[in-house]
Amino acid sequence: MSKKIMILPGDGIGPEIVEQAVAVLETVDRKFNLGLRFEQGLIGGASIDTHGEPLTDAQLQAASACDAVLLGAVGGPKWDKLERDIRPERGLLKIRSKLGLYANLRPAILYPQLAEASSLKPEVVSGLDILIVRELTGGIYFGEPRGIRTLENGERQGFNTYVYSESEIERIARTAFEAARKRNGRLCSVDKANVLEVTVLWREVLDRLAPEYPDVELSHMYVDNAAMQLVRAPKQFDVLVTGNMFGDILSDAAAMLTGSIGMLPSASMNESGFGLYEPCHGSAPDIAGQGVANPLATILSAAMMLRYSLDMGEAASAIESAVSQVLDEGLRTADIVTDGAKKVSTAEMGAAVVAAF
Amino acid sequence: MSKKIMILPGDGIGPEIVEQAVAVLETVDRKFNLGLRFEQGLIGGASIDTHGEPLTDAQLQAASACDAVLLGAVGGPKWDKLERDIRPERGLLKIRSKLGLYANLRPAILYPQLAEASSLKPEVVSGLDILIVRELTGGIYFGEPRGIRTLENGERQGFNTYVYSESEIERIARTAFEAARKRNGRLCSVDKANVLEVTVLWREVLDRLAPEYPDVELSHMYVDNAAMQLVRAPKQFDVLVTGNMFGDILSDAAAMLTGSIGMLPSASMNESGFGLYEPCHGSAPDIAGQGVANPLATILSAAMMLRYSLDMGEAASAIESAVSQVLDEGLRTADIVTDGAKKVSTAEMGAAVVAAF
Ligand SMILES: CC(C)[C@H](C(=O)O)[C@@H](O)C(=O)O
Ligand SMILES: CC(C)[C@H](C(=O)O)[C@@H](O)C(=O)O
Repeated sequence: MSKKIMILPGDGIGPEIVEQAVAVLETVDRKFNLGLRFEQGLIGGASIDTHGEPLTDAQLQAASACDAVLLGAVGGPKWDKLERDIRPERGLLKIRSKLGLYANLRPAILYPQLAEASSLKPEVVSGLDILIVRELTGGIYFGEPRGIRTLENGERQGFNTYVYSESEIERIARTAFEAARKRNGRLCSVDKANVLEVTVLWREVLDRLAPEYPDVELSHMYVDNAAMQLVRAPKQFDVLVTGNMFGDILSDAAAMLTGSIGMLPSASMNESGFGLYEPCHGSAPDIAGQGVANPLATILSAAMMLRYSLDMGEAASAIESAVSQVLDEGLRTADIVTDGAKKVSTAEMGAAVVAAF
Repeated sequence: MSKKIMILPGDGIGPEIVEQAVAVLETVDRKFNLGLRFEQGLIGGASIDTHGEPLTDAQLQAASACDAVLLGAVGGPKWDKLERDIRPERGLLKIRSKLGLYANLRPAILYPQLAEASSLKPEVVSGLDILIVRELTGGIYFGEPRGIRTLENGERQGFNTYVYSESEIERIARTAFEAARKRNGRLCSVDKANVLEVTVLWREVLDRLAPEYPDVELSHMYVDNAAMQLVRAPKQFDVLVTGNMFGDILSDAAAMLTGSIGMLPSASMNESGFGLYEPCHGSAPDIAGQGVANPLATILSAAMMLRYSLDMGEAASAIESAVSQVLDEGLRTADIVTDGAKKVSTAEMGAAVVAAF
């Protein structure tokens, strides 16, 4: 009963960090006899350079034939001048959409060993552990009509459509209610219902489902206030659920609260539990190829993959413990280094995790 | 040559804080012989209770016949169950739109006396002084079509339209370039041009105008990254310019970085310099009527009004000095109180500012 994992390193620091995550996966594979098999593929700029498009249909097909996908990151200045439709990001949006990966889970956890790395005061963030559930295949990212048109008066006008149907809202809401149930039972739904009709419907659907989850306490917050509250007192939150665009913004802010965005994994799943796993951070072209990037977010994404898509919880926990151990040992890549810690390279960090089993 | 100011206290803490701001304006009026005249009006829930709608056309007319508008805040749970079209917020959106107040200036300044109030580490925020320029009469707030419709399969779908024309982008861009020119010459435009066409056009227009402002250094940042960077290292920014929705979110996050959102004023202006001035914070219904709200943001909004719409810079500076003096004296309302400071009420704070002239 082997399991096939599609490895999509992507661009920038993607290949370096994914290499370390694969080494860690190979280690747990041997140790726990998991029967993992790996296939390598192209996405983003890497695919543009080879195939002229950021994700080929054949690659998409191959990914969907696997049991899970591990991705590095996409994008970089090299492809920034291309038309939106053939840019690296388009490959990521295509795989999310075509594989129906609507449920994006983004934990923002402060590692006690890294408390100092946060730009917030220790008392504001110590023990921080929130989960952002972001809708990933709908909303304004995919809404039609969209484009740039020329008006009668000759000037151009850009337009996008922010749209959600009840069923799209319901399925992500259920993901969030269920996640809250397994955590501290509090769910805060973020919208802009005082201005946007699409989020009036969003709020209505959440309220309609709430009685089915009597063990979860549902609250609502406007997105501007949520951005404020994340800065002021982030520990008030347990699970946050929101649409694609607000989720993009809030999850990055939340990740940064921990001071260690290089540490945070993410999962993007469909109805049947198939998922794509990637670090929360981007492709960081400015430091690509230098061997200084932090591979831990990708390694922790691999752990999430084992737990959520492959039902290998024990192996996942072993990876998480190994990561915790190297942090305890004081090893730090450049992004999280503080006085007195031991600064290591991408490869050294990966090797240390492998050695910690 | 008298100047008429429309006073719109609104809801929640609005009336309490506006009362103090008017007392301060009356004081500078006497001292500098400004010839200010005041007219009181209704907006938001207060107007709904009297007229059944959040802003009557007569009130709008009266406001536009004045030289400037000073507003408290709108909204509260009492009116939360009303249809979106007749809710308090609608009054605010109507006055912004009908008076063409497209240029919203939101400074986020850390008052040195309040450095401790921030949830961020002192070294991250000390000396913080950024200006967010938010487009206020377009974008997804006003885009059509919008609403909730029933699809053929019977389920409902909510939709809004995010739209900007070149001329709308150009005028707010010019406001921002000019503001940057008067400050430290750096302008960061925030968009999501890797996903949204409307912001591809936004970026294009900014780039087209840049050569006209050779003394301003223009950069671009994606909104998710901007939310991160505001948390990580906010002092990297001078002026930020963005659309209505992103501006709503980022300006609240930026305001909260200072730890004293009760201190921050805002201006919303049209092409001819007519403006509406209001605190950045909301109506805070939870503390309304208790006399504990911080009136300083409204008092500082009054100062902005004198400077930007009434060309009374000297009087504006006098108000700002008076506010600085009461802070130096250690007076603090509940929202900004720290150990060793003297906690005062809304009225006491207002009286202290008046006494500081
Ligand atoms: C690269 C970009 C298209 C993407 C997004 O906006 O979803 C990224 O910011 C993310 O959050 O995964
Ligand atoms: C009250 C609301 C409609 C308003 C907005 O979203 O613009 C407020 O949040 C603001 O920022 O002034």
